[in-house]
Amino acid sequence: MASPEPPVFTGLFSINGATRLYGTIGDPIRQLRLTALMPQVFAAVGANAVWLPFEGGPPLLQLMLDALRGRMRNLGGFTVTIPHKTAILPMLDRVSPRAQASGSVNMVKRDASGALVGDIGDGLGFVRGLEAMGHRVRGASVWLVGLGGVGGAIAAALCEAGVGRLLVSELDDARADAALARLSRFYPDVPVASTDTPPNGIHYAINATPLGLRPDDPLPFDPMILTPDVLVTEVIMSPAETPLLQRARTHGRRVHHGRHTLDHQVPILLDWFGIDANGIDIVRLVRSIP
Amino acid sequence: MASPEPPVFTGLFSINGATRLYGTIGDPIRQLRLTALMPQVFAAVGANAVWLPFEGGPPLLQLMLDALRGRMRNLGGFTVTIPHKTAILPMLDRVSPRAQASGSVNMVKRDASGALVGDIGDGLGFVRGLEAMGHRVRGASVWLVGLGGVGGAIAAALCEAGVGRLLVSELDDARADAALARLSRFYPDVPVASTDTPPNGIHYAINATPLGLRPDDPLPFDPMILTPDVLVTEVIMSPAETPLLQRARTHGRRVHHGRHTLDHQVPILLDWFGIDANGIDIVRLVRSIP
Repeated sequence: MASPEPPVFTGLFSINGATRLYGTIGDPIRQLRLTALMPQVFAAVGANAVWLPFEGGPPLLQLMLDALRGRMRNLGGFTVTIPHKTAILPMLDRVSPRAQASGSVNMVKRDASGALVGDIGDGLGFVRGLEAMGHRVRGASVWLVGLGGVGGAIAAALCEAGVGRLLVSELDDARADAALARLSRFYPDVPVASTDTPPNGIHYAINATPLGLRPDDPLPFDPMILTPDVLVTEVIMSPAETPLLQRARTHGRRVHHGRHTLDHQVPILLDWFGIDANGIDIVRLVRSIP
Repeated sequence: MASPEPPVFTGLFSINGATRLYGTIGDPIRQLRLTALMPQVFAAVGANAVWLPFEGGPPLLQLMLDALRGRMRNLGGFTVTIPHKTAILPMLDRVSPRAQASGSVNMVKRDASGALVGDIGDGLGFVRGLEAMGHRVRGASVWLVGLGGVGGAIAAALCEAGVGRLLVSELDDARADAALARLSRFYPDVPVASTDTPPNGIHYAINATPLGLRPDDPLPFDPMILTPDVLVTEVIMSPAETPLLQRARTHGRRVHHGRHTLDHQVPILLDWFGIDANGIDIVRLVRSIP
Protein backbone atom coordinates (compact mmCIF):
# COMPACT_ATOMS: atom_id res chain seq x y z
CA MET A 1 0.00 0.00 0.00
CA ALA A 2 1.69 3.16 -1.22
CA SER A 3 1.82 6.20 0.99
CA PRO A 4 0.89 9.33 -0.98
CA GLU A 5 3.91 11.37 0.07
CA PRO A 6 6.63 9.02 1.27
CA PRO A 7 9.47 10.70 3.14
CA VAL A 8 12.40 11.27 0.86
CA PHE A 9 15.57 9.31 1.56
CA THR A 10 18.68 10.66 -0.11
CA GLY A 11 20.59 7.40 -0.08
CA LEU A 12 23.33 9.01 1.96
CA PHE A 13 24.25 7.87 5.39
CA SER A 14 27.52 8.10 7.15
CA ILE A 15 29.36 6.44 9.98
CA ASN A 16 31.78 8.29 12.21
CA GLY A 17 33.58 7.70 15.47
CA ALA A 18 30.49 8.65 17.47
CA THR A 19 28.09 6.31 15.65
CA ARG A 20 26.18 3.89 17.89
CA LEU A 21 26.07 0.27 16.78
CA TYR A 22 22.89 -1.81 16.62
CA GLY A 23 22.29 -5.03 14.76
CA THR A 24 20.88 -8.51 14.58
CA ILE A 25 22.61 -11.71 15.69
CA GLY A 26 21.73 -14.76 13.62
CA ASP A 27 23.05 -17.88 11.99
CA PRO A 28 22.48 -17.59 9.08
CA ILE A 29 22.16 -13.82 8.83
CA ARG A 30 22.38 -13.11 5.09
CA GLN A 31 18.58 -12.91 4.87
CA LEU A 32 18.46 -9.94 7.25
CA ARG A 33 16.01 -7.25 6.13
CA LEU A 34 16.47 -4.63 8.84
CA THR A 35 19.78 -3.53 7.30
CA ALA A 36 17.76 -2.21 4.35
CA LEU A 37 15.29 -0.33 6.53
CA MET A 38 17.12 0.98 9.55
CA PRO A 39 19.65 3.31 7.86
CA GLN A 40 16.74 5.18 6.32
CA VAL A 41 14.89 5.20 9.63
CA PHE A 42 17.94 6.42 11.56
CA ALA A 43 18.58 9.10 8.95
CA ALA A 44 14.95 10.26 9.07
CA VAL A 45 14.87 10.58 12.86
CA GLY A 46 18.36 12.07 13.08
CA ALA A 47 20.00 9.22 15.00
CA ASN A 48 23.74 8.67 14.51
CA ALA A 49 23.42 4.90 14.43
CA VAL A 50 23.94 1.92 12.14
CA TRP A 51 22.25 -1.48 11.87
CA LEU A 52 24.57 -4.44 11.30
CA PRO A 53 24.47 -8.16 10.69
CA PHE A 54 26.28 -10.18 13.39
CA GLU A 55 26.77 -13.72 12.10
CA GLY A 56 27.36 -16.53 14.52
CA GLY A 57 25.99 -19.40 16.56
CA PRO A 58 25.55 -19.83 20.33
CA PRO A 59 29.11 -18.72 21.30
CA LEU A 60 28.44 -15.35 19.70
CA LEU A 61 25.42 -14.77 21.96
CA GLN A 62 27.45 -14.74 25.18
CA LEU A 63 30.12 -12.63 23.53
CA MET A 64 27.60 -10.01 22.45
CA LEU A 65 25.98 -9.96 25.89
CA ASP A 66 29.43 -9.32 27.38
CA ALA A 67 29.92 -6.56 24.82
CA LEU A 68 26.55 -5.03 25.74
CA ARG A 69 27.24 -5.25 29.46
CA GLY A 70 29.82 -2.52 28.96
CA ARG A 71 32.82 -3.90 27.16
CA MET A 72 31.80 -2.26 23.88
CA ARG A 73 30.50 1.10 24.97
CA ASN A 74 29.06 2.21 21.63
CA LEU A 75 26.97 -0.94 21.22
CA GLY A 76 23.40 0.27 21.65
CA GLY A 77 21.73 -3.13 21.66
CA PHE A 78 20.65 -5.84 19.28
CA THR A 79 17.93 -8.14 18.13
CA VAL A 80 18.37 -11.86 17.74
CA THR A 81 16.95 -14.21 15.15
CA ILE A 82 17.29 -17.91 14.30
CA PRO A 83 18.56 -19.90 16.21
CA HIS A 84 18.90 -17.61 19.23
CA LYS A 85 15.42 -16.48 20.21
CA THR A 86 14.80 -19.19 22.80
CA ALA A 87 18.39 -19.79 23.89
CA ILE A 88 18.97 -16.18 24.92
CA LEU A 89 16.01 -16.03 27.33
CA PRO A 90 17.73 -17.56 30.40
CA MET A 91 20.94 -15.58 29.67
CA LEU A 92 19.32 -12.24 30.46
CA ASP A 93 18.86 -10.46 33.78
CA ARG A 94 15.22 -9.62 33.15
CA VAL A 95 12.67 -10.60 30.50
CA SER A 96 9.23 -9.06 29.92
CA PRO A 97 6.12 -11.14 30.76
CA ARG A 98 5.23 -11.01 27.05
CA ALA A 99 8.56 -12.59 26.14
CA GLN A 100 8.27 -15.17 28.91
CA ALA A 101 4.80 -16.09 27.66
CA SER A 102 6.20 -16.29 24.12
CA GLY A 103 9.11 -18.44 25.21
CA SER A 104 11.39 -16.24 23.16
CA VAL A 105 13.17 -12.90 23.04
CA ASN A 106 14.18 -10.90 20.02
CA MET A 107 15.14 -7.48 21.46
CA VAL A 108 17.98 -7.02 23.94
CA LYS A 109 19.29 -3.87 25.57
CA ARG A 110 21.11 -2.70 28.69
CA ASP A 111 18.81 -0.69 30.91
CA ALA A 112 19.68 2.35 33.03
CA SER A 113 20.64 0.13 35.99
CA GLY A 114 23.07 -1.86 33.84
CA ALA A 115 20.84 -4.95 33.63
CA LEU A 116 20.52 -6.87 30.37
CA VAL A 117 16.82 -6.99 29.53
CA GLY A 118 14.83 -8.69 26.80
CA ASP A 119 11.47 -8.41 25.12
CA ILE A 120 9.78 -9.74 22.00
CA GLY A 121 8.36 -7.52 19.27
CA ASP A 122 7.31 -10.12 16.69
CA GLY A 123 3.82 -10.77 18.00
CA LEU A 124 3.24 -7.16 18.97
CA GLY A 125 4.17 -6.11 15.44
CA PHE A 126 1.67 -8.60 14.07
CA VAL A 127 -1.13 -7.35 16.34
CA ARG A 128 -0.40 -3.69 15.61
CA GLY A 129 -0.27 -4.41 11.87
CA LEU A 130 -3.64 -6.13 12.06
CA GLU A 131 -5.22 -3.31 14.06
CA ALA A 132 -3.73 -0.63 11.81
CA MET A 133 -5.59 -2.21 8.89
CA GLY A 134 -8.85 -1.94 10.84
CA HIS A 135 -8.98 -5.49 12.18
CA ARG A 136 -9.97 -5.41 15.84
CA VAL A 137 -8.16 -7.93 18.02
CA ARG A 138 -9.86 -7.40 21.40
CA GLY A 139 -12.65 -9.93 21.74
CA ALA A 140 -11.93 -11.61 18.39
CA SER A 141 -11.84 -15.37 17.80
CA VAL A 142 -8.53 -16.36 16.24
CA TRP A 143 -7.13 -19.55 14.75
CA LEU A 144 -3.35 -19.65 14.91
CA VAL A 145 -1.52 -22.32 12.90
CA GLY A 146 2.01 -22.96 14.15
CA LEU A 147 3.43 -22.42 17.64
CA GLY A 148 7.11 -22.15 16.79
CA GLY A 149 9.04 -19.00 17.65
CA VAL A 150 6.87 -16.58 15.69
CA GLY A 151 3.64 -18.43 16.47
CA GLY A 152 4.38 -18.46 20.19
CA ALA A 153 5.08 -14.72 20.11
CA ILE A 154 1.87 -14.02 18.20
CA ALA A 155 -0.12 -16.16 20.64
CA ALA A 156 1.23 -14.18 23.59
CA ALA A 157 0.61 -10.83 21.89
CA LEU A 158 -2.95 -11.85 20.99
CA CYS A 159 -3.65 -12.86 24.59
CA GLU A 160 -2.10 -9.64 25.86
CA ALA A 161 -4.28 -7.67 23.43
CA GLY A 162 -7.39 -9.31 24.89
CA VAL A 163 -8.37 -11.77 22.19
CA GLY A 164 -11.75 -13.39 22.98
CA ARG A 165 -10.80 -16.93 22.05
CA LEU A 166 -7.58 -18.45 20.73
CA LEU A 167 -7.51 -21.79 18.92
CA VAL A 168 -4.12 -23.20 18.04
CA SER A 169 -2.87 -25.96 15.76
CA GLU A 170 0.64 -27.31 16.16
CA LEU A 171 1.79 -30.72 14.93
CA ASP A 172 4.54 -30.98 17.57
CA ASP A 173 2.67 -32.01 20.72
CA ALA A 174 5.46 -31.12 23.13
CA ARG A 175 5.80 -27.68 21.61
CA ALA A 176 2.05 -27.17 21.76
CA ASP A 177 1.84 -28.29 25.40
CA ALA A 178 4.69 -25.98 26.43
CA ALA A 179 3.14 -23.01 24.63
CA LEU A 180 -0.31 -23.61 26.14
CA ALA A 181 1.20 -23.93 29.60
CA ARG A 182 3.03 -20.62 29.22
CA LEU A 183 -0.06 -18.84 27.92
CA SER A 184 -2.32 -20.14 30.70
CA ARG A 185 0.25 -19.04 33.28
CA PHE A 186 0.57 -15.47 32.00
CA TYR A 187 -2.94 -14.96 30.60
CA PRO A 188 -5.19 -17.20 32.72
CA ASP A 189 -8.34 -15.32 31.67
CA VAL A 190 -7.99 -15.95 27.94
CA PRO A 191 -9.60 -19.17 26.67
CA VAL A 192 -6.95 -21.01 24.66
CA ALA A 193 -7.43 -24.47 23.18
CA SER A 194 -5.84 -26.83 20.68
CA THR A 195 -7.65 -27.94 17.59
CA ASP A 196 -6.74 -30.48 14.91
CA THR A 197 -9.24 -29.18 12.40
CA PRO A 198 -10.11 -25.73 11.01
CA PRO A 199 -12.54 -24.26 13.50
CA ASN A 200 -15.83 -22.50 12.82
CA GLY A 201 -16.82 -19.07 14.05
CA ILE A 202 -13.41 -17.44 13.81
CA HIS A 203 -12.53 -13.95 12.61
CA TYR A 204 -8.88 -14.45 11.72
CA ALA A 205 -6.83 -17.42 10.50
CA ILE A 206 -3.08 -16.95 10.86
CA ASN A 207 -0.31 -18.91 9.18
CA ALA A 208 2.63 -18.82 11.59
CA THR A 209 4.37 -21.87 10.11
CA PRO A 210 7.27 -21.59 7.65
CA LEU A 211 5.14 -23.23 4.94
CA GLY A 212 5.12 -20.89 1.97
CA LEU A 213 8.74 -19.78 2.21
CA ARG A 214 9.66 -22.27 -0.53
CA PRO A 215 7.68 -22.53 -3.77
CA ASP A 216 7.04 -26.27 -3.40
CA ASP A 217 5.77 -26.09 0.19
CA PRO A 218 2.28 -27.49 0.80
CA LEU A 219 -0.31 -25.00 2.04
CA PRO A 220 -0.39 -24.72 5.86
CA PHE A 221 -4.16 -25.02 5.53
CA ASP A 222 -6.72 -24.63 2.78
CA PRO A 223 -8.32 -21.19 3.15
CA MET A 224 -11.35 -22.29 1.13
CA ILE A 225 -12.64 -24.56 3.87
CA LEU A 226 -13.06 -21.52 6.11
CA THR A 227 -16.21 -19.43 5.99
CA PRO A 228 -15.93 -16.53 3.50
CA ASP A 229 -15.75 -13.81 6.17
CA VAL A 230 -12.52 -15.10 7.75
CA LEU A 231 -9.48 -12.87 7.20
CA VAL A 232 -6.56 -15.00 6.01
CA THR A 233 -3.31 -13.66 7.43
CA GLU A 234 0.31 -14.55 6.86
CA VAL A 235 3.55 -13.95 8.76
CA ILE A 236 5.83 -14.78 5.83
CA MET A 237 7.20 -11.61 4.21
CA SER A 238 9.06 -13.13 1.30
CA PRO A 239 7.47 -14.04 -1.04
CA ALA A 240 5.17 -11.05 -0.50
CA GLU A 241 2.23 -13.18 -1.54
CA THR A 242 2.49 -16.82 -0.50
CA PRO A 243 0.45 -19.56 -2.24
CA LEU A 244 -1.89 -19.42 0.78
CA LEU A 245 -2.64 -15.73 0.28
CA GLN A 246 -2.79 -16.11 -3.47
CA ARG A 247 -5.34 -18.88 -3.28
CA ALA A 248 -7.45 -16.96 -0.76
CA ARG A 249 -7.28 -13.68 -2.66
CA THR A 250 -8.03 -15.12 -6.10
CA HIS A 251 -11.12 -16.73 -4.60
CA GLY A 252 -12.36 -13.44 -3.22
CA ARG A 253 -11.25 -13.87 0.37
CA ARG A 254 -9.82 -11.01 2.42
CA VAL A 255 -6.10 -11.34 3.08
CA HIS A 256 -3.47 -9.64 5.27
CA HIS A 257 0.18 -9.77 4.17
CA GLY A 258 3.24 -10.56 6.27
CA ARG A 259 4.81 -7.23 5.43
CA HIS A 260 2.50 -5.38 7.83
CA THR A 261 4.26 -7.07 10.73
CA LEU A 262 7.65 -5.78 9.61
CA ASP A 263 6.29 -2.24 9.08
CA HIS A 264 5.03 -2.19 12.66
CA GLN A 265 8.07 -3.83 14.21
CA VAL A 266 10.32 -0.89 13.37
CA PRO A 267 8.62 1.67 15.67
CA ILE A 268 8.60 -1.03 18.35
CA LEU A 269 12.39 -1.32 17.90
CA LEU A 270 12.90 2.44 18.18
CA ASP A 271 10.79 2.54 21.35
CA TRP A 272 12.73 -0.38 22.82
CA PHE A 273 16.11 1.20 22.21
CA GLY A 274 14.94 4.61 23.39
CA ILE A 275 15.52 6.29 20.03
CA ASP A 276 13.26 9.32 19.61
CA ALA A 277 11.21 9.14 16.40
CA ASN A 278 11.14 12.95 16.42
CA GLY A 279 7.54 13.03 15.27
CA ILE A 280 8.24 10.97 12.12
CA ASP A 281 5.50 8.49 11.10
CA ILE A 282 7.78 5.46 11.12
CA VAL A 283 5.28 2.97 9.75
CA ARG A 284 4.62 5.20 6.77
CA LEU A 285 8.35 5.67 6.25
CA VAL A 286 9.03 1.94 6.40
CA ARG A 287 6.15 1.25 3.99
CA SER A 288 7.74 3.57 1.46
CA ILE A 289 10.92 1.47 1.39
CA PRO A 290 10.73 -1.28 -1.24
CA MET B 1 47.53 18.03 -3.35
CA ALA B 2 44.47 17.69 -5.57
CA SER B 3 44.25 14.84 -8.02
CA PRO B 4 43.17 16.12 -11.46
CA GLU B 5 40.35 13.61 -11.91
CA PRO B 6 39.34 12.30 -8.51
CA PRO B 7 37.16 9.17 -8.60
CA VAL B 8 33.55 10.11 -8.09
CA PHE B 9 31.86 8.93 -4.93
CA THR B 10 28.10 8.93 -5.11
CA GLY B 11 27.56 9.16 -1.37
CA LEU B 12 25.56 5.94 -1.43
CA PHE B 13 26.60 2.85 0.39
CA SER B 14 24.53 0.09 1.80
CA ILE B 15 24.73 -2.63 4.38
CA ASN B 16 23.00 -5.96 3.99
CA GLY B 17 23.07 -9.37 5.64
CA ALA B 18 26.18 -10.37 3.69
CA THR B 19 28.23 -7.27 4.58
CA ARG B 20 31.59 -7.97 6.20
CA LEU B 21 32.46 -5.97 9.30
CA TYR B 22 35.77 -4.17 9.82
CA GLY B 23 36.60 -1.44 12.24
CA THR B 24 38.90 0.16 14.75
CA ILE B 25 39.01 -0.57 18.48
CA GLY B 26 39.93 2.40 20.61
CA ASP B 27 39.21 4.28 23.80
CA PRO B 28 38.37 7.01 23.01
CA ILE B 29 37.24 6.32 19.43
CA ARG B 30 35.23 9.42 18.49
CA GLN B 31 38.25 10.87 16.69
CA LEU B 32 38.34 7.97 14.20
CA ARG B 33 39.02 9.09 10.62
CA LEU B 34 38.87 5.78 8.76
CA THR B 35 35.06 5.74 8.99
CA ALA B 36 35.07 8.74 6.64
CA LEU B 37 37.41 7.10 4.15
CA MET B 38 36.68 3.40 4.07
CA PRO B 39 33.06 3.44 2.86
CA GLN B 40 34.22 5.30 -0.22
CA VAL B 41 37.16 2.95 -0.68
CA PHE B 42 34.97 -0.15 -0.25
CA ALA B 43 32.41 1.25 -2.69
CA ALA B 44 35.11 2.07 -5.24
CA VAL B 45 36.67 -1.40 -5.15
CA GLY B 46 33.31 -3.18 -4.99
CA ALA B 47 33.73 -4.70 -1.52
CA ASN B 48 30.58 -5.39 0.50
CA ALA B 49 32.12 -4.19 3.75
CA VAL B 50 31.73 -1.51 6.38
CA TRP B 51 34.21 0.23 8.72
CA LEU B 52 33.02 0.74 12.28
CA PRO B 53 34.13 2.34 15.53
CA PHE B 54 34.44 -0.17 18.40
CA GLU B 55 34.69 1.78 21.66
CA GLY B 56 36.19 0.14 24.69
CA GLY B 57 39.18 -0.44 26.92
CA PRO B 58 41.29 -3.56 27.53
CA PRO B 59 38.33 -5.94 28.15
CA LEU B 60 37.06 -5.19 24.65
CA LEU B 61 40.34 -6.34 23.11
CA GLN B 62 39.99 -9.94 24.30
CA LEU B 63 36.33 -9.95 23.34
CA MET B 64 37.09 -8.83 19.79
CA LEU B 65 39.87 -11.38 19.46
CA ASP B 66 37.39 -14.08 20.50
CA ALA B 67 34.95 -12.69 17.94
CA LEU B 68 37.64 -12.78 15.25
CA ARG B 69 38.72 -16.30 16.15
CA GLY B 70 35.41 -17.48 14.71
CA ARG B 71 32.59 -16.50 17.02
CA MET B 72 31.51 -13.64 14.75
CA ARG B 73 31.91 -15.08 11.31
CA ASN B 74 31.33 -11.89 9.34
CA LEU B 75 34.00 -9.95 11.25
CA GLY B 76 36.76 -9.45 8.69
CA GLY B 77 39.33 -7.97 11.04
CA PHE B 78 40.16 -4.73 12.77
CA THR B 79 42.75 -2.14 13.57
CA VAL B 80 43.50 -0.94 17.06
CA THR B 81 44.41 2.51 18.27
CA ILE B 82 45.02 4.17 21.65
CA PRO B 83 45.45 2.54 24.20
CA HIS B 84 45.65 -0.91 22.61
CA LYS B 85 48.60 -0.91 20.23
CA THR B 86 51.14 -2.29 22.67
CA ALA B 87 48.80 -4.34 24.86
CA ILE B 88 47.51 -6.45 21.98
CA LEU B 89 50.94 -7.64 20.86
CA PRO B 90 51.32 -10.57 23.30
CA MET B 91 47.64 -11.56 22.82
CA LEU B 92 48.18 -12.62 19.20
CA ASP B 93 49.36 -15.93 17.78
CA ARG B 94 51.86 -14.35 15.40
CA VAL B 95 53.21 -10.85 14.92
CA SER B 96 55.31 -9.57 12.01
CA PRO B 97 58.98 -8.71 12.65
CA ARG B 98 58.13 -5.11 11.72
CA ALA B 99 55.49 -4.99 14.46
CA GLN B 100 57.81 -6.67 16.97
CA ALA B 101 60.51 -4.14 16.18
CA SER B 102 57.92 -1.36 16.55
CA GLY B 103 56.69 -2.73 19.84
CA SER B 104 53.14 -2.27 18.62
CA VAL B 105 50.45 -3.67 16.37
CA ASN B 106 47.64 -1.82 14.66
CA MET B 107 46.26 -4.38 12.15
CA VAL B 108 44.76 -7.70 13.22
CA LYS B 109 43.26 -10.49 11.12
CA ARG B 110 42.66 -14.21 11.19
CA ASP B 111 44.83 -15.97 8.65
CA ALA B 112 43.93 -19.00 6.52
CA SER B 113 45.13 -21.39 9.24
CA GLY B 114 42.89 -19.73 11.83
CA ALA B 115 45.72 -17.96 13.64
CA LEU B 116 45.29 -14.40 14.87
CA VAL B 117 48.07 -12.35 13.32
CA GLY B 118 49.18 -8.77 13.71
CA ASP B 119 51.20 -6.18 11.84
CA ILE B 120 51.76 -2.44 11.96
CA GLY B 121 51.06 -0.12 9.08
CA ASP B 122 51.76 3.27 10.67
CA GLY B 123 55.47 3.45 9.91
CA LEU B 124 55.10 1.79 6.53
CA GLY B 125 52.47 4.37 5.57
CA PHE B 126 54.87 7.13 6.58
CA VAL B 127 57.75 5.66 4.54
CA ARG B 128 55.55 5.10 1.48
CA GLY B 129 54.14 8.61 1.75
CA LEU B 130 57.65 10.03 1.89
CA GLU B 131 58.83 7.99 -1.09
CA ALA B 132 55.71 8.79 -3.12
CA MET B 133 56.63 12.48 -2.83
CA GLY B 134 60.07 11.72 -4.24
CA HIS B 135 61.99 11.53 -0.96
CA ARG B 136 64.30 8.53 -1.05
CA VAL B 137 64.56 6.65 2.24
CA ARG B 138 67.19 4.02 1.42
CA GLY B 139 70.55 5.33 2.53
CA ALA B 140 69.16 8.57 3.97
CA SER B 141 70.12 10.09 7.31
CA VAL B 142 67.07 10.69 9.43
CA TRP B 143 66.36 12.41 12.73
CA LEU B 144 63.28 11.04 14.45
CA VAL B 145 61.85 12.98 17.40
CA GLY B 146 59.63 10.86 19.63
CA LEU B 147 59.69 7.09 20.13
CA GLY B 148 56.16 6.54 21.37
CA GLY B 149 53.79 4.27 19.45
CA VAL B 150 53.96 6.10 16.15
CA GLY B 151 57.63 6.97 16.53
CA GLY B 152 58.57 3.37 17.28
CA ALA B 153 56.66 2.20 14.22
CA ILE B 154 58.31 4.80 12.01
CA ALA B 155 61.75 3.85 13.35
CA ALA B 156 61.14 0.20 12.47
CA ALA B 157 59.79 1.03 9.02
CA LEU B 158 62.76 3.31 8.31
CA CYS B 159 65.19 0.58 9.33
CA GLU B 160 63.31 -1.97 7.25
CA ALA B 161 63.45 0.41 4.27
CA GLY B 162 67.25 0.56 4.60
CA VAL B 163 67.79 3.99 6.07
CA GLY B 164 71.53 4.84 6.15
CA ARG B 165 71.55 6.34 9.64
CA LEU B 166 68.84 6.87 12.23
CA LEU B 167 69.19 9.39 15.03
CA VAL B 168 66.48 9.44 17.65
CA SER B 169 65.43 11.83 20.40
CA GLU B 170 63.12 10.68 23.16
CA LEU B 171 62.82 12.33 26.57
CA ASP B 172 61.70 9.12 28.28
CA ASP B 173 64.94 7.18 28.75
CA ALA B 174 63.27 3.83 29.43
CA ARG B 175 61.15 4.14 26.31
CA ALA B 176 64.21 5.12 24.26
CA ASP B 177 66.27 2.22 25.60
CA ALA B 178 63.52 -0.30 24.86
CA ALA B 179 63.04 1.02 21.33
CA LEU B 180 66.75 0.99 20.57
CA ALA B 181 67.05 -2.56 21.90
CA ARG B 182 64.20 -3.73 19.65
CA LEU B 183 65.64 -2.01 16.61
CA SER B 184 69.14 -3.40 17.11
CA ARG B 185 67.68 -6.88 17.53
CA PHE B 186 65.66 -6.81 14.31
CA TYR B 187 67.84 -4.51 12.19
CA PRO B 188 71.37 -5.06 13.47
CA ASP B 189 72.92 -3.60 10.33
CA VAL B 190 71.29 -0.17 10.62
CA PRO B 191 73.24 2.38 12.67
CA VAL B 192 70.82 3.82 15.23
CA ALA B 193 71.81 6.27 17.95
CA SER B 194 70.26 8.62 20.45
CA THR B 195 70.87 12.32 20.35
CA ASP B 196 69.89 15.10 22.72
CA THR B 197 70.50 17.85 20.20
CA PRO B 198 69.47 18.47 16.59
CA PRO B 199 72.05 16.63 14.50
CA ASN B 200 73.90 17.86 11.45
CA GLY B 201 74.03 16.14 8.08
CA ILE B 202 70.53 14.79 8.04
CA HIS B 203 68.06 14.64 5.15
CA TYR B 204 64.81 14.36 7.07
CA ALA B 205 63.62 15.57 10.48
CA ILE B 206 60.45 13.88 11.69
CA ASN B 207 58.12 15.01 14.45
CA ALA B 208 56.59 11.83 15.89
CA THR B 209 55.58 13.42 19.19
CA PRO B 210 52.02 14.60 19.89
CA LEU B 211 53.26 18.20 20.16
CA GLY B 212 51.23 20.23 17.71
CA LEU B 213 47.90 18.54 18.29
CA ARG B 214 46.88 21.38 20.62
CA PRO B 215 47.27 25.02 19.62
CA ASP B 216 49.26 25.91 22.75
CA ASP B 217 51.77 23.05 22.46
CA PRO B 218 55.44 24.04 22.28
CA LEU B 219 57.27 23.11 19.09
CA PRO B 220 58.81 19.60 19.25
CA PHE B 221 61.98 21.22 17.86
CA ASP B 222 62.87 24.47 16.11
CA PRO B 223 63.14 23.72 12.38
CA MET B 224 65.25 26.85 11.85
CA ILE B 225 68.26 25.42 13.66
CA LEU B 226 68.47 22.72 10.98
CA THR B 227 70.34 23.31 7.76
CA PRO B 228 68.06 24.67 5.00
CA ASP B 229 68.06 21.48 2.91
CA VAL B 230 66.47 19.33 5.65
CA LEU B 231 62.91 18.21 4.89
CA VAL B 232 60.69 18.88 7.92
CA THR B 233 58.09 16.15 8.27
CA GLU B 234 55.12 15.73 10.54
CA VAL B 235 52.97 12.77 11.58
CA ILE B 236 50.11 14.86 12.97
CA MET B 237 47.21 15.03 10.52
CA SER B 238 44.96 17.43 12.37
CA PRO B 239 45.63 20.32 12.25
CA ALA B 240 46.75 19.79 8.65
CA GLU B 241 49.54 22.30 9.19
CA THR B 242 51.02 22.25 12.66
CA PRO B 243 52.97 25.23 14.06
CA LEU B 244 56.14 23.25 13.28
CA LEU B 245 55.27 22.93 9.58
CA GLN B 246 53.97 26.49 9.45
CA ARG B 247 57.19 27.91 10.87
CA ALA B 248 59.32 25.81 8.55
CA ARG B 249 57.25 26.59 5.44
CA THR B 250 56.96 30.34 6.04
CA HIS B 251 60.75 30.45 6.33
CA GLY B 252 61.20 28.73 3.00
CA ARG B 253 61.90 25.24 4.26
CA ARG B 254 60.56 22.13 2.54
CA VAL B 255 57.82 20.38 4.50
CA HIS B 256 55.92 17.08 4.34
CA HIS B 257 52.44 16.88 5.88
CA GLY B 258 51.01 14.19 8.13
CA ARG B 259 48.18 13.51 5.72
CA HIS B 260 50.48 11.60 3.35
CA THR B 261 50.80 8.85 5.95
CA LEU B 262 47.03 8.40 6.10
CA ASP B 263 46.73 8.35 2.31
CA HIS B 264 49.25 5.54 2.11
CA GLN B 265 47.90 3.57 5.06
CA VAL B 266 44.66 2.77 3.27
CA PRO B 267 46.15 0.57 0.51
CA ILE B 268 48.22 -1.10 3.23
CA LEU B 269 44.96 -1.90 5.05
CA LEU B 270 43.36 -3.36 1.92
CA ASP B 271 46.42 -5.53 1.29
CA TRP B 272 46.42 -6.71 4.88
CA PHE B 273 42.77 -7.73 4.85
CA GLY B 274 43.07 -9.33 1.40
CA ILE B 275 40.61 -6.94 -0.22
CA ASP B 276 41.29 -6.62 -3.95
CA ALA B 277 41.72 -2.98 -5.01
CA ASN B 278 40.46 -3.98 -8.48
CA GLY B 279 42.98 -1.76 -10.20
CA ILE B 280 41.80 1.39 -8.40
CA ASP B 281 44.51 3.91 -7.44
CA ILE B 282 43.65 3.94 -3.76
CA VAL B 283 46.05 6.71 -2.73
CA ARG B 284 44.57 9.00 -5.35
CA LEU B 285 41.06 8.08 -4.24
CA VAL B 286 41.85 8.73 -0.57
CA ARG B 287 43.51 12.06 -1.45
CA SER B 288 40.31 13.17 -3.14
CA ILE B 289 38.35 12.73 0.09
CA PRO B 290 38.37 15.91 2.18
